[in-house]
Amino acid sequence: MAKGEVKLLGSWPSPYVMRARIALNLKSVEYEFLEEKLGVKSELLLKSNPVHKKIPVLLHHSKPICESLVIVQYIDEVWSSGPAILPSDPYDRAVARFWASYVDEKFFPALRALPMAQGKEAMEAAMHPVKEGLALLEDAYANHSKGGPFFGGGQISYLDVAFGCFLGVIRVSEKVTGVALINEHTTPGLAGWAEEFCAHPAVEDVMPDTDKLTEFINRIIKMKSQSPN
Amino acid sequence: MAKGEVKLLGSWPSPYVMRARIALNLKSVEYEFLEEKLGVKSELLLKSNPVHKKIPVLLHHSKPICESLVIVQYIDEVWSSGPAILPSDPYDRAVARFWASYVDEKFFPALRALPMAQGKEAMEAAMHPVKEGLALLEDAYANHSKGGPFFGGGQISYLDVAFGCFLGVIRVSEKVTGVALINEHTTPGLAGWAEEFCAHPAVEDVMPDTDKLTEFINRIIKMKSQSPN
Repeated sequence: MAKGEVKLLGSWPSPYVMRARIALNLKSVEYEFLEEKLGVKSELLLKSNPVHKKIPVLLHHSKPICESLVIVQYIDEVWSSGPAILPSDPYDRAVARFWASYVDEKFFPALRALPMAQGKEAMEAAMHPVKEGLALLEDAYANHSKGGPFFGGGQISYLDVAFGCFLGVIRVSEKVTGVALINEHTTPGLAGWAEEFCAHPAVEDVMPDTDKLTEFINRIIKMKSQSPN
Repeated sequence: MAKGEVKLLGSWPSPYVMRARIALNLKSVEYEFLEEKLGVKSELLLKSNPVHKKIPVLLHHSKPICESLVIVQYIDEVWSSGPAILPSDPYDRAVARFWASYVDEKFFPALRALPMAQGKEAMEAAMHPVKEGLALLEDAYANHSKGGPFFGGGQISYLDVAFGCFLGVIRVSEKVTGVALINEHTTPGLAGWAEEFCAHPAVEDVMPDTDKLTEFINRIIKMKSQSPN
Protein backbone atom coordinates (compact mmCIF):
# COMPACT_ATOMS: atom_id res chain seq x y z
CA MET A 1 0.00 0.00 0.00
CA ALA A 2 1.41 3.42 -0.96
CA LYS A 3 2.28 5.65 1.97
CA GLY A 4 -0.48 8.15 2.62
CA GLU A 5 -3.08 6.12 0.73
CA VAL A 6 -5.26 5.75 3.84
CA LYS A 7 -5.68 8.41 6.51
CA LEU A 8 -8.14 8.62 9.36
CA LEU A 9 -9.17 11.89 10.96
CA GLY A 10 -10.12 11.06 14.52
CA SER A 11 -9.64 11.40 18.23
CA TRP A 12 -8.71 8.67 20.75
CA PRO A 13 -11.80 8.90 23.02
CA SER A 14 -14.42 8.79 20.22
CA PRO A 15 -16.36 5.51 20.01
CA TYR A 16 -17.29 6.34 16.42
CA VAL A 17 -13.63 6.73 15.45
CA MET A 18 -12.94 3.42 17.18
CA ARG A 19 -15.31 1.70 14.74
CA ALA A 20 -13.22 2.80 11.79
CA ARG A 21 -9.96 1.82 13.54
CA ILE A 22 -11.22 -1.66 14.43
CA ALA A 23 -12.44 -2.20 10.85
CA LEU A 24 -9.04 -1.09 9.46
CA ASN A 25 -7.28 -3.38 11.96
CA LEU A 26 -9.49 -6.33 11.02
CA LYS A 27 -8.43 -5.86 7.40
CA SER A 28 -4.76 -5.22 8.35
CA VAL A 29 -4.87 -1.88 6.53
CA GLU A 30 -2.03 0.47 7.41
CA TYR A 31 -3.21 4.01 7.92
CA GLU A 32 -2.07 7.37 9.18
CA PHE A 33 -4.04 8.51 12.23
CA LEU A 34 -4.53 12.27 12.23
CA GLU A 35 -5.61 13.23 15.74
CA GLU A 36 -8.01 16.16 15.92
CA LYS A 37 -7.57 18.44 18.93
CA LEU A 38 -10.47 18.86 21.35
CA GLY A 39 -12.45 22.01 20.53
CA VAL A 40 -10.50 22.81 17.35
CA LYS A 41 -11.56 21.55 13.94
CA SER A 42 -8.72 21.21 11.44
CA GLU A 43 -8.95 22.70 7.97
CA LEU A 44 -8.74 19.18 6.58
CA LEU A 45 -11.75 18.09 8.67
CA LEU A 46 -13.84 21.11 7.63
CA LYS A 47 -12.95 20.49 4.00
CA SER A 48 -13.50 16.72 4.17
CA ASN A 49 -16.82 16.70 6.05
CA PRO A 50 -18.40 20.10 5.34
CA VAL A 51 -21.92 18.83 6.12
CA HIS A 52 -21.40 17.57 9.69
CA LYS A 53 -17.84 18.80 10.44
CA LYS A 54 -17.38 15.67 12.55
CA ILE A 55 -14.93 12.83 12.99
CA PRO A 56 -14.32 10.14 11.92
CA VAL A 57 -13.42 10.86 8.30
CA LEU A 58 -11.58 8.20 6.31
CA LEU A 59 -9.45 9.54 3.47
CA HIS A 60 -8.77 6.93 0.81
CA HIS A 61 -6.60 8.27 -2.01
CA SER A 62 -7.65 11.70 -0.64
CA LYS A 63 -11.37 10.94 -1.18
CA PRO A 64 -13.33 11.49 2.05
CA ILE A 65 -15.79 8.96 3.51
CA CYS A 66 -17.83 10.18 6.49
CA GLU A 67 -20.13 8.62 9.14
CA SER A 68 -18.73 5.72 11.13
CA LEU A 69 -21.04 2.93 9.93
CA VAL A 70 -20.69 4.09 6.32
CA ILE A 71 -16.91 3.93 6.81
CA VAL A 72 -17.03 0.40 8.28
CA GLN A 73 -19.11 -0.83 5.33
CA TYR A 74 -16.77 0.94 2.88
CA ILE A 75 -13.71 -0.70 4.46
CA ASP A 76 -15.42 -4.07 4.30
CA GLU A 77 -16.28 -3.63 0.62
CA VAL A 78 -12.89 -2.27 -0.50
CA TRP A 79 -10.42 -4.51 1.35
CA SER A 80 -10.53 -8.27 1.19
CA SER A 81 -7.30 -8.50 3.20
CA GLY A 82 -9.13 -9.77 6.26
CA PRO A 83 -12.36 -11.51 7.28
CA ALA A 84 -15.66 -10.10 6.01
CA ILE A 85 -17.15 -7.68 8.55
CA LEU A 86 -20.76 -7.80 7.33
CA PRO A 87 -22.32 -11.29 7.65
CA SER A 88 -22.54 -13.13 4.34
CA ASP A 89 -26.26 -14.00 4.56
CA PRO A 90 -28.63 -11.12 3.60
CA TYR A 91 -30.98 -11.82 6.53
CA ASP A 92 -28.09 -11.85 9.02
CA ARG A 93 -26.85 -8.60 7.44
CA ALA A 94 -30.31 -7.05 7.89
CA VAL A 95 -30.38 -8.14 11.54
CA ALA A 96 -26.90 -6.70 12.16
CA ARG A 97 -27.84 -3.41 10.46
CA PHE A 98 -31.07 -3.23 12.46
CA TRP A 99 -29.28 -3.57 15.80
CA ALA A 100 -26.46 -1.23 14.78
CA SER A 101 -29.08 1.39 14.03
CA TYR A 102 -30.79 0.65 17.39
CA VAL A 103 -27.50 1.14 19.20
CA ASP A 104 -26.94 4.53 17.57
CA GLU A 105 -30.48 5.85 17.74
CA LYS A 106 -31.68 4.54 21.10
CA PHE A 107 -28.98 2.94 23.22
CA PHE A 108 -26.11 5.44 22.97
CA PRO A 109 -28.26 8.57 23.52
CA ALA A 110 -29.51 6.91 26.75
CA LEU A 111 -25.99 5.86 27.80
CA ARG A 112 -24.57 9.32 27.12
CA ALA A 113 -27.15 10.90 29.43
CA LEU A 114 -26.05 8.75 32.41
CA PRO A 115 -22.93 10.58 33.61
CA MET A 116 -24.83 13.87 33.36
CA ALA A 117 -27.66 12.79 35.72
CA GLN A 118 -27.47 14.58 39.07
CA GLY A 119 -29.20 13.20 42.16
CA LYS A 120 -30.73 9.82 42.97
CA GLU A 121 -34.04 10.34 41.19
CA ALA A 122 -32.49 11.68 37.97
CA MET A 123 -29.97 8.84 38.04
CA GLU A 124 -32.68 6.20 38.36
CA ALA A 125 -34.66 7.77 35.53
CA ALA A 126 -31.54 7.88 33.34
CA MET A 127 -30.59 4.31 34.25
CA HIS A 128 -33.90 2.80 33.16
CA PRO A 129 -33.54 3.09 29.33
CA VAL A 130 -29.89 1.96 29.53
CA LYS A 131 -30.80 -1.24 31.36
CA GLU A 132 -33.74 -1.78 29.01
CA GLY A 133 -31.40 -1.39 26.02
CA LEU A 134 -28.88 -3.84 27.49
CA ALA A 135 -31.65 -6.39 28.10
CA LEU A 136 -32.67 -6.13 24.43
CA LEU A 137 -29.05 -6.47 23.31
CA GLU A 138 -28.60 -9.47 25.63
CA ASP A 139 -31.57 -11.10 23.85
CA ALA A 140 -30.14 -10.19 20.44
CA TYR A 141 -26.83 -11.77 21.46
CA ALA A 142 -28.58 -14.95 22.64
CA ASN A 143 -30.57 -15.14 19.38
CA HIS A 144 -27.81 -14.39 16.89
CA SER A 145 -24.41 -15.41 18.32
CA LYS A 146 -25.01 -19.05 17.34
CA GLY A 147 -22.96 -20.27 20.29
CA GLY A 148 -19.89 -18.28 19.19
CA PRO A 149 -18.35 -15.60 21.38
CA PHE A 150 -19.42 -12.74 19.04
CA PHE A 151 -22.71 -11.32 17.80
CA GLY A 152 -22.00 -12.75 14.37
CA GLY A 153 -20.95 -16.15 15.79
CA GLY A 154 -17.34 -17.29 15.66
CA GLN A 155 -15.73 -14.03 14.52
CA ILE A 156 -16.09 -10.30 15.09
CA SER A 157 -18.56 -8.75 12.69
CA TYR A 158 -20.54 -5.58 12.03
CA LEU A 159 -22.69 -5.45 15.18
CA ASP A 160 -19.73 -6.31 17.43
CA VAL A 161 -17.91 -3.29 16.02
CA ALA A 162 -20.99 -1.04 16.14
CA PHE A 163 -21.88 -1.87 19.76
CA GLY A 164 -18.46 -2.83 21.14
CA CYS A 165 -17.06 0.66 20.53
CA PHE A 166 -19.30 1.85 23.40
CA LEU A 167 -17.77 -0.52 25.97
CA GLY A 168 -15.33 2.21 27.07
CA VAL A 169 -18.20 4.59 27.81
CA ILE A 170 -20.14 1.77 29.51
CA ARG A 171 -17.17 1.13 31.83
CA VAL A 172 -16.92 4.84 32.64
CA SER A 173 -20.65 4.88 33.42
CA GLU A 174 -20.22 1.85 35.68
CA LYS A 175 -17.40 3.62 37.51
CA VAL A 176 -19.31 6.89 37.89
CA THR A 177 -22.61 5.32 38.99
CA GLY A 178 -21.25 2.35 40.92
CA VAL A 179 -23.66 0.08 39.01
CA ALA A 180 -22.34 -2.90 37.04
CA LEU A 181 -24.36 -2.39 33.85
CA ILE A 182 -22.96 -5.47 32.14
CA ASN A 183 -22.60 -8.33 34.62
CA GLU A 184 -22.85 -12.10 34.88
CA HIS A 185 -26.28 -12.08 36.50
CA THR A 186 -28.44 -9.78 34.37
CA THR A 187 -26.46 -9.90 31.09
CA PRO A 188 -24.33 -13.08 31.16
CA GLY A 189 -24.05 -13.24 27.36
CA LEU A 190 -22.86 -9.64 27.06
CA ALA A 191 -20.45 -10.10 29.98
CA GLY A 192 -18.60 -12.88 28.19
CA TRP A 193 -18.85 -11.08 24.86
CA ALA A 194 -17.39 -7.83 26.26
CA GLU A 195 -14.37 -9.69 27.59
CA GLU A 196 -13.73 -11.48 24.29
CA PHE A 197 -14.27 -8.29 22.30
CA CYS A 198 -11.86 -6.15 24.33
CA ALA A 199 -9.16 -8.84 24.20
CA HIS A 200 -9.38 -9.17 20.39
CA PRO A 201 -6.12 -8.12 18.63
CA ALA A 202 -8.04 -5.67 16.39
CA VAL A 203 -9.58 -3.99 19.44
CA GLU A 204 -7.22 -4.08 22.43
CA ASP A 205 -4.92 -1.27 21.28
CA VAL A 206 -7.73 1.14 20.40
CA MET A 207 -10.04 0.55 23.40
CA PRO A 208 -9.33 3.47 25.73
CA ASP A 209 -8.18 2.98 29.31
CA THR A 210 -11.18 3.48 31.64
CA ASP A 211 -9.43 5.93 34.00
CA LYS A 212 -8.14 8.06 31.14
CA LEU A 213 -11.57 8.07 29.47
CA THR A 214 -13.31 8.91 32.77
CA GLU A 215 -11.00 11.90 33.19
CA PHE A 216 -11.73 13.00 29.62
CA ILE A 217 -15.53 12.66 30.00
CA ASN A 218 -15.44 14.57 33.30
CA ARG A 219 -13.54 17.35 31.54
CA ILE A 220 -16.21 17.49 28.80
CA ILE A 221 -19.06 17.58 31.36
CA LYS A 222 -17.28 20.40 33.21
CA MET A 223 -16.74 22.33 29.97
CA LYS A 224 -20.42 21.93 29.05
CA SER A 225 -21.63 23.01 32.49
CA GLN A 226 -19.47 26.16 32.24
CA SER A 227 -20.59 26.95 28.70
CA PRO A 228 -23.08 29.85 28.43
CA ASN A 229 -25.33 27.80 26.08
CA MET B 1 -42.96 -16.76 -6.30
CA ALA B 2 -45.16 -18.64 -3.81
CA LYS B 3 -48.23 -16.74 -2.65
CA GLY B 4 -47.64 -15.17 0.74
CA GLU B 5 -43.86 -15.38 0.44
CA VAL B 6 -43.50 -11.60 0.70
CA LYS B 7 -45.68 -9.36 2.84
CA LEU B 8 -45.29 -5.73 3.77
CA LEU B 9 -46.81 -4.21 6.88
CA GLY B 10 -47.37 -0.56 6.09
CA SER B 11 -49.62 2.42 5.63
CA TRP B 12 -50.17 4.48 2.48
CA PRO B 13 -49.04 7.90 3.79
CA SER B 14 -45.73 6.71 5.31
CA PRO B 15 -42.63 7.81 3.38
CA TYR B 16 -40.66 5.02 5.05
CA VAL B 17 -43.12 2.41 3.82
CA MET B 18 -42.87 3.95 0.35
CA ARG B 19 -39.15 3.15 0.31
CA ALA B 20 -39.87 -0.55 0.72
CA ARG B 21 -42.65 -0.47 -1.90
CA ILE B 22 -40.46 1.30 -4.48
CA ALA B 23 -37.64 -1.19 -3.87
CA LEU B 24 -40.04 -4.13 -4.30
CA ASN B 25 -41.44 -2.54 -7.48
CA LEU B 26 -37.95 -1.97 -8.88
CA LYS B 27 -37.27 -5.69 -8.47
CA SER B 28 -40.76 -6.68 -9.74
CA VAL B 29 -41.41 -8.58 -6.53
CA GLU B 30 -45.07 -9.42 -5.93
CA TYR B 31 -46.11 -8.81 -2.35
CA GLU B 32 -49.13 -8.62 -0.13
CA PHE B 33 -49.62 -5.15 1.36
CA LEU B 34 -51.05 -5.34 4.88
CA GLU B 35 -52.33 -1.85 5.71
CA GLU B 36 -52.03 -0.91 9.37
CA LYS B 37 -54.84 1.25 10.72
CA LEU B 38 -53.99 4.70 12.10
CA GLY B 39 -53.63 4.58 15.87
CA VAL B 40 -53.99 0.79 16.13
CA LYS B 41 -51.01 -1.55 16.00
CA SER B 42 -51.81 -5.05 14.75
CA GLU B 43 -50.73 -8.14 16.64
CA LEU B 44 -48.55 -9.05 13.67
CA LEU B 45 -46.76 -5.68 13.82
CA LEU B 46 -46.15 -5.93 17.58
CA LYS B 47 -44.81 -9.46 17.14
CA SER B 48 -42.70 -8.63 14.09
CA ASN B 49 -41.09 -5.41 15.35
CA PRO B 50 -41.21 -5.65 19.15
CA VAL B 51 -38.34 -3.17 19.58
CA HIS B 52 -39.78 -0.16 17.73
CA LYS B 53 -43.37 -1.32 17.03
CA LYS B 54 -43.21 0.66 13.79
CA ILE B 55 -43.92 0.18 10.10
CA PRO B 56 -42.59 -0.75 7.62
CA VAL B 57 -41.91 -4.40 8.33
CA LEU B 58 -41.09 -6.72 5.45
CA LEU B 59 -41.99 -10.35 6.03
CA HIS B 60 -40.02 -12.71 3.80
CA HIS B 61 -40.96 -16.36 4.35
CA SER B 62 -42.44 -15.04 7.65
CA LYS B 63 -39.05 -13.66 8.79
CA PRO B 64 -39.36 -9.96 9.73
CA ILE B 65 -37.01 -7.25 8.45
CA CYS B 66 -37.46 -3.82 10.05
CA GLU B 67 -36.23 -0.25 9.40
CA SER B 68 -36.83 1.17 5.94
CA LEU B 69 -33.22 1.51 4.75
CA VAL B 70 -32.35 -1.93 6.10
CA ILE B 71 -35.33 -3.28 4.13
CA VAL B 72 -34.23 -1.53 0.91
CA GLN B 73 -30.73 -3.00 1.22
CA TYR B 74 -32.17 -6.44 2.01
CA ILE B 75 -34.42 -6.33 -1.07
CA ASP B 76 -31.46 -5.27 -3.19
CA GLU B 77 -29.31 -8.12 -1.89
CA VAL B 78 -31.96 -10.86 -2.12
CA TRP B 79 -33.61 -10.17 -5.49
CA SER B 80 -31.66 -9.85 -8.71
CA SER B 81 -34.91 -9.60 -10.69
CA GLY B 82 -34.36 -5.91 -11.39
CA PRO B 83 -31.59 -3.29 -11.56
CA ALA B 84 -29.22 -2.98 -8.59
CA ILE B 85 -30.43 -0.34 -6.14
CA LEU B 86 -27.12 0.32 -4.39
CA PRO B 87 -24.46 1.73 -6.74
CA SER B 88 -21.87 -0.85 -7.78
CA ASP B 89 -18.79 1.21 -6.84
CA PRO B 90 -17.94 1.17 -3.09
CA TYR B 91 -17.22 4.92 -3.01
CA ASP B 92 -20.53 5.72 -4.76
CA ARG B 93 -22.24 3.40 -2.27
CA ALA B 94 -20.62 5.24 0.64
CA VAL B 95 -21.75 8.60 -0.81
CA ALA B 96 -25.32 7.32 -1.26
CA ARG B 97 -25.39 5.90 2.30
CA PHE B 98 -23.99 9.17 3.68
CA TRP B 99 -26.73 11.28 2.06
CA ALA B 100 -29.48 8.79 2.94
CA SER B 101 -28.40 9.09 6.56
CA TYR B 102 -28.33 12.92 6.23
CA VAL B 103 -31.88 12.89 4.86
CA ASP B 104 -33.14 10.80 7.82
CA GLU B 105 -31.19 12.49 10.58
CA LYS B 106 -31.24 16.14 9.52
CA PHE B 107 -33.50 16.88 6.56
CA PHE B 108 -36.70 15.03 7.45
CA PRO B 109 -36.87 16.18 11.10
CA ALA B 110 -36.64 19.77 9.77
CA LEU B 111 -39.26 19.14 7.08
CA ARG B 112 -41.64 17.50 9.54
CA ALA B 113 -41.56 20.57 11.77
CA LEU B 114 -42.74 22.87 8.97
CA PRO B 115 -46.51 22.23 8.93
CA MET B 116 -46.51 22.54 12.74
CA ALA B 117 -45.00 26.06 12.78
CA GLN B 118 -47.58 28.68 13.77
CA GLY B 119 -47.09 32.37 12.92
CA LYS B 120 -44.70 34.17 10.56
CA GLU B 121 -41.65 34.13 12.80
CA ALA B 122 -41.93 30.45 13.72
CA MET B 123 -42.50 29.62 10.06
CA GLU B 124 -39.36 31.50 8.97
CA ALA B 125 -37.30 29.79 11.67
CA ALA B 126 -38.66 26.38 10.64
CA MET B 127 -38.10 27.13 6.94
CA HIS B 128 -34.40 27.92 7.32
CA PRO B 129 -33.03 24.36 7.95
CA VAL B 130 -35.30 22.92 5.24
CA LYS B 131 -33.95 25.32 2.62
CA GLU B 132 -30.41 24.73 3.85
CA GLY B 133 -30.94 20.97 3.51
CA LEU B 134 -32.35 21.32 0.01
CA ALA B 135 -29.36 23.46 -1.03
CA LEU B 136 -27.00 20.71 0.20
CA LEU B 137 -29.01 18.04 -1.63
CA GLU B 138 -29.00 20.20 -4.79
CA ASP B 139 -25.18 20.24 -4.57
CA ALA B 140 -25.09 16.49 -3.96
CA TYR B 141 -27.28 15.98 -7.02
CA ALA B 142 -25.02 18.19 -9.15
CA ASN B 143 -21.93 16.32 -7.93
CA HIS B 144 -23.18 12.75 -8.21
CA SER B 145 -25.90 12.49 -10.89
CA LYS B 146 -23.26 12.32 -13.66
CA GLY B 147 -25.60 14.05 -16.12
CA GLY B 148 -28.33 11.41 -15.62
CA PRO B 149 -31.75 12.31 -14.32
CA PHE B 150 -31.23 10.47 -11.00
CA PHE B 151 -28.86 10.77 -8.04
CA GLY B 152 -27.12 7.62 -9.14
CA GLY B 153 -26.97 8.73 -12.79
CA GLY B 154 -29.07 7.03 -15.46
CA GLN B 155 -31.26 4.91 -13.20
CA ILE B 156 -33.03 5.15 -9.86
CA SER B 157 -30.80 4.07 -7.01
CA TYR B 158 -30.53 4.07 -3.21
CA LEU B 159 -30.45 7.82 -2.55
CA ASP B 160 -33.30 8.48 -5.00
CA VAL B 161 -35.44 6.05 -3.02
CA ALA B 162 -34.27 7.36 0.38
CA PHE B 163 -34.89 11.04 -0.46
CA GLY B 164 -37.63 10.73 -3.08
CA CYS B 165 -40.05 9.15 -0.60
CA PHE B 166 -40.27 12.57 1.07
CA LEU B 167 -41.51 14.36 -2.08
CA GLY B 168 -45.12 13.87 -1.00
CA VAL B 169 -44.47 15.60 2.33
CA ILE B 170 -42.47 18.32 0.53
CA ARG B 171 -45.47 19.01 -1.74
CA VAL B 172 -47.79 19.19 1.25
CA SER B 173 -45.39 21.62 2.93
CA GLU B 174 -45.33 23.74 -0.24
CA LYS B 175 -49.12 23.80 -0.28
CA VAL B 176 -49.44 24.67 3.41
CA THR B 177 -46.73 27.36 3.44
CA GLY B 178 -47.25 28.74 -0.07
CA VAL B 179 -43.48 28.47 -0.64
CA ALA B 180 -42.15 26.46 -3.59
CA LEU B 181 -39.38 24.57 -1.75
CA ILE B 182 -38.14 22.75 -4.85
CA ASN B 183 -38.22 25.07 -7.86
CA GLU B 184 -36.37 25.84 -11.08
CA HIS B 185 -34.59 28.89 -9.69
CA THR B 186 -33.06 27.78 -6.37
CA THR B 187 -32.95 24.00 -6.93
CA PRO B 188 -33.06 23.40 -10.70
CA GLY B 189 -31.42 19.98 -10.45
CA LEU B 190 -33.87 18.73 -7.81
CA ALA B 191 -36.83 20.21 -9.75
CA GLY B 192 -36.04 18.07 -12.80
CA TRP B 193 -35.15 15.08 -10.62
CA ALA B 194 -38.45 15.24 -8.66
CA GLU B 195 -40.44 15.19 -11.90
CA GLU B 196 -38.53 12.20 -13.29
CA PHE B 197 -38.71 10.36 -9.98
CA CYS B 198 -42.47 10.75 -9.50
CA ALA B 199 -43.16 9.66 -13.10
CA HIS B 200 -41.06 6.48 -12.75
CA PRO B 201 -43.15 3.29 -13.10
CA ALA B 202 -41.84 1.97 -9.74
CA VAL B 203 -42.91 5.17 -8.00
CA GLU B 204 -46.02 6.66 -9.60
CA ASP B 205 -48.54 4.26 -8.07
CA VAL B 206 -47.18 4.55 -4.53
CA MET B 207 -46.57 8.33 -4.38
CA PRO B 208 -49.58 9.69 -2.49
CA ASP B 209 -51.87 12.32 -3.98
CA THR B 210 -50.94 15.73 -2.49
CA ASP B 211 -54.52 16.70 -1.51
CA LYS B 212 -55.17 13.35 0.16
CA LEU B 213 -51.83 13.51 2.01
CA THR B 214 -52.49 17.13 3.09
CA GLU B 215 -55.81 16.07 4.55
CA PHE B 216 -54.14 13.18 6.36
CA ILE B 217 -51.33 15.34 7.80
CA ASN B 218 -53.85 17.98 8.94
CA ARG B 219 -55.76 15.23 10.74
CA ILE B 220 -52.57 14.08 12.51
CA ILE B 221 -51.69 17.65 13.54
CA LYS B 222 -55.22 18.13 14.91
CA MET B 223 -55.04 14.82 16.82
CA LYS B 224 -51.68 15.79 18.32
CA SER B 225 -52.89 19.26 19.34
CA GLN B 226 -55.89 17.66 21.10
CA SER B 227 -53.79 14.99 22.81
CA PRO B 228 -53.22 15.61 26.56
CA ASN B 229 -49.49 14.82 26.14
